[in-house]
Amino acid sequence: MSRNLTMMTDLYELTMMYGYFKEGKHNDKAVFDLFFRRQVGHSAYAIMAGLEQVIDYINDIHFSEDDIAYLRSLGLFGEDFLDYLRDFRFHGELYAATEGSIVFPGEPIVRVKAGIAEAQLLETTMLNIINHQTLIATKASRICAAAKGGTVMEFGLRRAQGPDAGTLGARAAIIGGCASTSNVLAAQMFGATPSGTHAHSWIMSFESELEAFRAYAKVFPDACVLLVDTYDVLNSGIPNAITVFNELREQGHEPIGIRIDSGDLAYLSKKARTMLDEAGYENAKIVASGDLDENLLLDLYLQGAKIDSWGIGTKLITSEDYPALGGVYKLSAIEIGGKMYPRLKLSENVWKITNPGYKKVKRIYSKFEHKAIADLIMLDEEELDETKPLTIFNPNAVWEHMTIENFYTEDILKPIFIDGKQVYEKPTLAEIRKHAEDEMDTLWDEYKRFTNPHVYKVDLSQKLYDMKTELLHQWKKDKN
Amino acid sequence: MSRNLTMMTDLYELTMMYGYFKEGKHNDKAVFDLFFRRQVGHSAYAIMAGLEQVIDYINDIHFSEDDIAYLRSLGLFGEDFLDYLRDFRFHGELYAATEGSIVFPGEPIVRVKAGIAEAQLLETTMLNIINHQTLIATKASRICAAAKGGTVMEFGLRRAQGPDAGTLGARAAIIGGCASTSNVLAAQMFGATPSGTHAHSWIMSFESELEAFRAYAKVFPDACVLLVDTYDVLNSGIPNAITVFNELREQGHEPIGIRIDSGDLAYLSKKARTMLDEAGYENAKIVASGDLDENLLLDLYLQGAKIDSWGIGTKLITSEDYPALGGVYKLSAIEIGGKMYPRLKLSENVWKITNPGYKKVKRIYSKFEHKAIADLIMLDEEELDETKPLTIFNPNAVWEHMTIENFYTEDILKPIFIDGKQVYEKPTLAEIRKHAEDEMDTLWDEYKRFTNPHVYKVDLSQKLYDMKTELLHQWKKDKN
Repeated sequence: MSRNLTMMTDLYELTMMYGYFKEGKHNDKAVFDLFFRRQVGHSAYAIMAGLEQVIDYINDIHFSEDDIAYLRSLGLFGEDFLDYLRDFRFHGELYAATEGSIVFPGEPIVRVKAGIAEAQLLETTMLNIINHQTLIATKASRICAAAKGGTVMEFGLRRAQGPDAGTLGARAAIIGGCASTSNVLAAQMFGATPSGTHAHSWIMSFESELEAFRAYAKVFPDACVLLVDTYDVLNSGIPNAITVFNELREQGHEPIGIRIDSGDLAYLSKKARTMLDEAGYENAKIVASGDLDENLLLDLYLQGAKIDSWGIGTKLITSEDYPALGGVYKLSAIEIGGKMYPRLKLSENVWKITNPGYKKVKRIYSKFEHKAIADLIMLDEEELDETKPLTIFNPNAVWEHMTIENFYTEDILKPIFIDGKQVYEKPTLAEIRKHAEDEMDTLWDEYKRFTNPHVYKVDLSQKLYDMKTELLHQWKKDKN
Repeated sequence: MSRNLTMMTDLYELTMMYGYFKEGKHNDKAVFDLFFRRQVGHSAYAIMAGLEQVIDYINDIHFSEDDIAYLRSLGLFGEDFLDYLRDFRFHGELYAATEGSIVFPGEPIVRVKAGIAEAQLLETTMLNIINHQTLIATKASRICAAAKGGTVMEFGLRRAQGPDAGTLGARAAIIGGCASTSNVLAAQMFGATPSGTHAHSWIMSFESELEAFRAYAKVFPDACVLLVDTYDVLNSGIPNAITVFNELREQGHEPIGIRIDSGDLAYLSKKARTMLDEAGYENAKIVASGDLDENLLLDLYLQGAKIDSWGIGTKLITSEDYPALGGVYKLSAIEIGGKMYPRLKLSENVWKITNPGYKKVKRIYSKFEHKAIADLIMLDEEELDETKPLTIFNPNAVWEHMTIENFYTEDILKPIFIDGKQVYEKPTLAEIRKHAEDEMDTLWDEYKRFTNPHVYKVDLSQKLYDMKTELLHQWKKDKN
């Protein structure tokens, strides 16, 4: 993604920027929070992803002369504003959860403080990138958990929603735990491992399956995985594979294994395992693919499937059962006449009312188990004394209290840009994947359940709760 | 999409190409069909889209020195093959359904005939592009049909699966019938109309809603659409909008309308209509947005919603209820020893067995109503005499015959590349959108039903059916 995404924004970001500019308030400071309201499908947690592409986008923000000419052609904007865009860049501050971190509904995962025109422009592009990659990383994490130590390969490029969905989606899948991707470009761009062998068309292009297997083994004697389901897995595919494996061994090579892409994977893999073992290929791997997701993996293992490695396509790369993460970007404070005022967005749905102010998020860990207990959203200026017992409460059921001792905390939001300068060093994809793995270890199993997981606590500090309540009372009073 | 997508392919395309190369058969001619097997969610038809990006991709196929170096680093390929890739380009033939055309499950929508290595490479990239855009164009077509003449604006960029999904998705949405997109880049790239006004953050950044409305109207006096649901639609939003509309009129400007983004859209729009009418704004439009799809549109109209224009986001741009079109690319003929042999892919599922041979697709239209009656897949060499009655039959229920008179036919597959040269002139997006509209007029309403539509007939010619049956008998005989 070296290409410029400045123009990839909703028109209303530009019309609002023009409005702020004409009102002379485009440099008034504003604070925006990026967060998602609901859990990601069946998952209690999400794996943050996409920050690298957000950083690249922000560093590269600029309007080319072609862009300016195009915007002029719309007849909406004055020349003064187009001149302003010509020199436009981001000068503000951005804090974010780092990639691979576990994040939860309702808490800011990105916080922007900048002149309102600059902060506003980031909205659509940042949401697009983070909504997508966080969604896919989360789905991948579930599938990898269901694979119980088996290898998961990302195979979805052909069914992804366009080139980026395939390529950035592969990146996100690896963050979520996949070992490799079929997408060569993604592997090249992000330093991942590409994987793949051959398709049914390879087999069909030869006069016989045996001939096709032999030809493949000749070219890749040390990377030989044979696709055995073109004609008949048990009566043709596996017997032919064993014939070729024997020939390979005679030449001093050890085959890798077989792939089954259709049929009853539990039944076929058990039969295949027996046939391979009896032929002396106890180490040959069985790879399965074909319309799989976490639920089917759990089910197949339950039926005793003998599968070592999974190729997962459509349902991972599109997050088929929940194809959009509904991240939003909401104003939480604004400078008016030189003074900052907290803001909240009202709604008839109580859970849709946003949290006002310039905030931070603390994760609270138990000192003994090193597991996460709860997240606490606080005003940025607040201190938290880790040496004293801490009482937190459910903001939607304030009578529900919990007092925590022997804890330590960590800030979820880390500085990424300060005064428009990137202050964060981007980790490698392998480092991000490792971070996600470590993060998963800090979660109790109850939060990782595939269906109806325990809901993780995201609470508000007393001070933030009071500010929110005060603003709501004020609004009700003004209204009447 | 000016960027090069050559490396955006599954690794197995490259390993197979290497295998063909080492076997000396990479230039043996092969025929592949691209098609999808099942209907697109609840839709009986699909709107073909993505061909323009496929053409750009094919014209630009090349491996850079960096790509070659990367492939070398994988340790899979010999130098002879890497040299071959250095000069690689597509020299073959490609026929396809043109964009905006209506296509059906089971029929080839792209047919490639080329040296097998060249034909093989196209697979993943072409599937990625066509699966995605065809899916979104089809979903858009359903939503636009449900809008019954109301304008549909594509608003989904922030929830799309990455930048391309937002941008190429917007293109596909316009092919399917959307009037505009919020995505400025898509509008700029494809010559579409961008649309959008302001967000809740605009309203919240001012001390009051009225002040925010006034500021917006001042900047855009002739393009004034006001978002009325930040605080309270009926008690604050619409009264304030009317105040500002009155001020605009005094200054000689006519407001465009209001937008409602939350709450009960049927109830609120009816109330809003009355309030606007009573204030003398019978021409002010009511725009609705917020988690909409074709089913909710139908429902809202049923409840008498007074909505002129729809902003559709997440559920359109991700095709939320059916987020992947399962297009496949299957070998249907192969040259062995200088002679072409038809091929089919077997399956335990009868409907998954592919159609062999070098084929074409004819659409049969009634001469009087100019409606499509059925599609007929035939061998390319077959002639069809339009002056004589034509009997077609269901290949899955061969006793079901139908004889057609007074018909004319059209080839679905048009020549796009011949001998590697593009022979097709790409239409503009507006032309494609118009073509899709005309195509929809050739479909009986029964095929456009939102739920349980009538299944359109896609039949095989007798000759093709006989070839398929013969190949299946042959396989069964070989097996026993």
